[in-house]
Amino acid sequence: MKSDWSVSRRAFLTNIARTGGAGAAYAVLDALGATALAIGEAHAYAGPPPMPAGIGKGKRVTIIGAGMAGLTSAYELSKAGFTCTVLEARARPGGRNWTIRGGDLIEQSDGLQKVNWPKAPHLYFNAGPARIPHHHHALLGYCREFNVPLEIMMNDNRAALYQDDAVFGGKPVEAKQVIHDANGHFGELLNKAMSSGGLDKELSKEDRERLREVLAVFGDLKADGRYHGSERAGYTEPPGAALKFGKIRDPLPLSELLKAELWQYKIAFNQNYEQTSTIMQPIGGMDQIPKAFAKRIGHMIRYETVVDEIRKTALGAKVICHNNKGQKTSIESDFIICTMPLSVLRNVPNDLSPNYKKAIAEVRYDTPAKIAFYAPRRFWELDNDIYGGMSWTNREITQILYPSQGIGQRDGVLVGAYSFGVFPEDDMSRVSVSERLKNAIVSGEHMHPGYQRMVRDGVSVAWPNVKYSQGGWASWTAEQKNDIYRTLQEPDGAIYFAGEHLSNLPAWQEGAILSAHYAIEKIATRVRS
Amino acid sequence: MKSDWSVSRRAFLTNIARTGGAGAAYAVLDALGATALAIGEAHAYAGPPPMPAGIGKGKRVTIIGAGMAGLTSAYELSKAGFTCTVLEARARPGGRNWTIRGGDLIEQSDGLQKVNWPKAPHLYFNAGPARIPHHHHALLGYCREFNVPLEIMMNDNRAALYQDDAVFGGKPVEAKQVIHDANGHFGELLNKAMSSGGLDKELSKEDRERLREVLAVFGDLKADGRYHGSERAGYTEPPGAALKFGKIRDPLPLSELLKAELWQYKIAFNQNYEQTSTIMQPIGGMDQIPKAFAKRIGHMIRYETVVDEIRKTALGAKVICHNNKGQKTSIESDFIICTMPLSVLRNVPNDLSPNYKKAIAEVRYDTPAKIAFYAPRRFWELDNDIYGGMSWTNREITQILYPSQGIGQRDGVLVGAYSFGVFPEDDMSRVSVSERLKNAIVSGEHMHPGYQRMVRDGVSVAWPNVKYSQGGWASWTAEQKNDIYRTLQEPDGAIYFAGEHLSNLPAWQEGAILSAHYAIEKIATRVRS
Repeated sequence: MKSDWSVSRRAFLTNIARTGGAGAAYAVLDALGATALAIGEAHAYAGPPPMPAGIGKGKRVTIIGAGMAGLTSAYELSKAGFTCTVLEARARPGGRNWTIRGGDLIEQSDGLQKVNWPKAPHLYFNAGPARIPHHHHALLGYCREFNVPLEIMMNDNRAALYQDDAVFGGKPVEAKQVIHDANGHFGELLNKAMSSGGLDKELSKEDRERLREVLAVFGDLKADGRYHGSERAGYTEPPGAALKFGKIRDPLPLSELLKAELWQYKIAFNQNYEQTSTIMQPIGGMDQIPKAFAKRIGHMIRYETVVDEIRKTALGAKVICHNNKGQKTSIESDFIICTMPLSVLRNVPNDLSPNYKKAIAEVRYDTPAKIAFYAPRRFWELDNDIYGGMSWTNREITQILYPSQGIGQRDGVLVGAYSFGVFPEDDMSRVSVSERLKNAIVSGEHMHPGYQRMVRDGVSVAWPNVKYSQGGWASWTAEQKNDIYRTLQEPDGAIYFAGEHLSNLPAWQEGAILSAHYAIEKIATRVRS
Repeated sequence: MKSDWSVSRRAFLTNIARTGGAGAAYAVLDALGATALAIGEAHAYAGPPPMPAGIGKGKRVTIIGAGMAGLTSAYELSKAGFTCTVLEARARPGGRNWTIRGGDLIEQSDGLQKVNWPKAPHLYFNAGPARIPHHHHALLGYCREFNVPLEIMMNDNRAALYQDDAVFGGKPVEAKQVIHDANGHFGELLNKAMSSGGLDKELSKEDRERLREVLAVFGDLKADGRYHGSERAGYTEPPGAALKFGKIRDPLPLSELLKAELWQYKIAFNQNYEQTSTIMQPIGGMDQIPKAFAKRIGHMIRYETVVDEIRKTALGAKVICHNNKGQKTSIESDFIICTMPLSVLRNVPNDLSPNYKKAIAEVRYDTPAKIAFYAPRRFWELDNDIYGGMSWTNREITQILYPSQGIGQRDGVLVGAYSFGVFPEDDMSRVSVSERLKNAIVSGEHMHPGYQRMVRDGVSVAWPNVKYSQGGWASWTAEQKNDIYRTLQEPDGAIYFAGEHLSNLPAWQEGAILSAHYAIEKIATRVRS
């Protein structure tokens, strides 16, 4: 599968660090001459598509999947008078929006896990999405509409750690050290370049003078224009009362910083459009959102109902499905909105047109996996001053995510691994759950000495192994984005498609919601004409 | 008063941007050859000083002030058997830790204000401290001990605004634009300097190659090593579903960025040791902390009791005071801990030794002021995607602080000004409350068009005008820090001093607490010897 990728791992990681998925796609499309639609300013989101009241009267829509795209479709269409039926293979709404708590069962193709954690409001694990960026207007709009209370999720925690086996003797350093020592070195280098005349052609004398002043602030440089360390990078002896004046850390050497693989994307991760402050989370777990939808449209959802076939009919289309008692049904309707991940849909017998089948078959899904542990003591807060945010490592676990909820409580649930699975070698699902957990503890020990005794009752969700998901998110190549991605934006007869995979916000709930809005708007236009 | 300052405003602001108060003091002392005490690693805080049980039996301590230093002193000393009396001029504990809510009265030398806001848990204004940094171990320790629930306070919000009359036509820009466009320009300049050989002497060939790769990530540079804008700086057309690929913003020009006064300290403010993530706040207002102390030691506090004289006696020392009924009392005890701000103490008749009187008289207090408004609609969230954090301006209001609490609620209280009052021209207390509020609305209008119609019921706390505070915090010069600051660390006979002013964490609650620990440890040592 790697051979599909014309870029090296390193170049790719650098690229996603730079631009994220959406930006990367945009850059390519822009180069190809595609014109972005005029959709106004970032703040101009005006809500779901307007649907004249009663427009859907007498029209039936079958929605496959009660994830965010399916829930959105059913909620909006039913408000407009459509009769909606949502078929959901699982026993819960949300799809990949999945919050796991003590007592839950995690069923995967590689076995069944029982979650042995105590129950408390702050003890949960968002196995899927865990963040709501401040500019995800559609998702935030539903949170407002449904009164889902939100709280701030700390994402960019400068007290969290970077650990890279190749540098600093493999010892973790604080994010504040890496970031501010780098800024200091960069500022000093720019000053030196100016002193040697290396920027005379680039900058006017006035701008060079101003730049020196700005660099003093940017890099916390001394009067000599050089970097001698900064309180921003932290103290070895913190300032206190009386004569405890504090002693700042020695700066990390530039040549060592440059060697760290973590630079290759982790350092800038929190700066990306989708990751930068402010990030929020629903109080009590991400599944508060699908639960709020289900409170309103739950009666339309048939849970534990598995789709066996999708067929075109004279009226529109039909779905053949069976429920958990093995009862088969055929449901015919005017329209279908299929929100299944393409990784699942490609194995469902259907009579979609060949170009649709091709599109559905070809897109690759990333293979992310997460691990969560219960910790009876919040050692990251007590021992490391880490309150929320992520520590990064070049090891397989990629990151440790600390809870933004339950601060100051005795215990907590922390995410002990989140491998994005962009490359086959990142795919933690290749090994058994127990091996995965063992590896995560070994890696965690490099970040937090004593980790193996401080965490317990690990569970792992590897998305390729999760039935009815079979992957994390669609990972379109730039070429596909100009070809088969576009195919699926249009209905095949009465069959429409929606989901994160049909958006430029891959993996994000906002993408799924906006994609649903796009599909229902097309249906509304069709019934009106 | 400005003549006391040997540095220019600009140099000073640059300096505090670089190092904050504590760091600046350290740098000076280090140069003077002072040796910082060995106090171990940042995470080695071991709690309040150990006090053998019953050590204080039969000993009386009068504590002047029920702010954080006084509360800490009384709590710890009484646990060790001392008999404590706390004299507090106000009707509430906390001192400068002051949370204001609907219905409250704000009494200042410049008039009385009634707070006309609705009452709700999220509608409050921390007129004094508003942040708990992740490394303030002593303060966090008391929050844990007293079960004061904390939540994350968003401080470094990249969606917040910078507004500078001198640049970008006075129009606000998002923090993410300023920060990432600057990083992009800096990265490009470093690449150019390398290309022209300007860093050949500074860096090995290998390091130069690595630096190019790192800069690509740091600055989000394209393959040509140049900056062409970044999704990190935001979109004019955000990515969405289907064919909405997004369109990134044009970068802000470097020469314009270099002109902005906001660089002079505001840009780096959130990077300072005390301001960097994670910052927390007590749920429901900062005064939850003094209230938690008062729940435990409230019976020792005599509220509305004003100190008239402080005198030395044969036994120890005495305080002459009067209560709100005009009743005069004299309280003699073995020890006094005076936590009054020196700005207040200097006007209380006393027989302290001349070098103490000199120290108390000479230190300058900064003159911070805040303004808060009630907003019936959370326009900063709805119109600007701003959830918590600060917008910065070069105008007198300095910043607008958005609430981290009550996200998604209908209404909110926002801080419409926080001038630090480091320089006389920043002192908002010079003008009347109504003029101050009017100015704040004019300035806010430059940040949020329509502001004047969106905020109402403004109130202002100007600390120089607050009785029993008469200033914000002690602002020691480097020379004073080596001289009169040290005088006050030692008791004058039986009279000890504590408060933020005797710490290297000026203005911070942590400084007040650690200073109290320092004083009570000295008392404990004395009674044991």
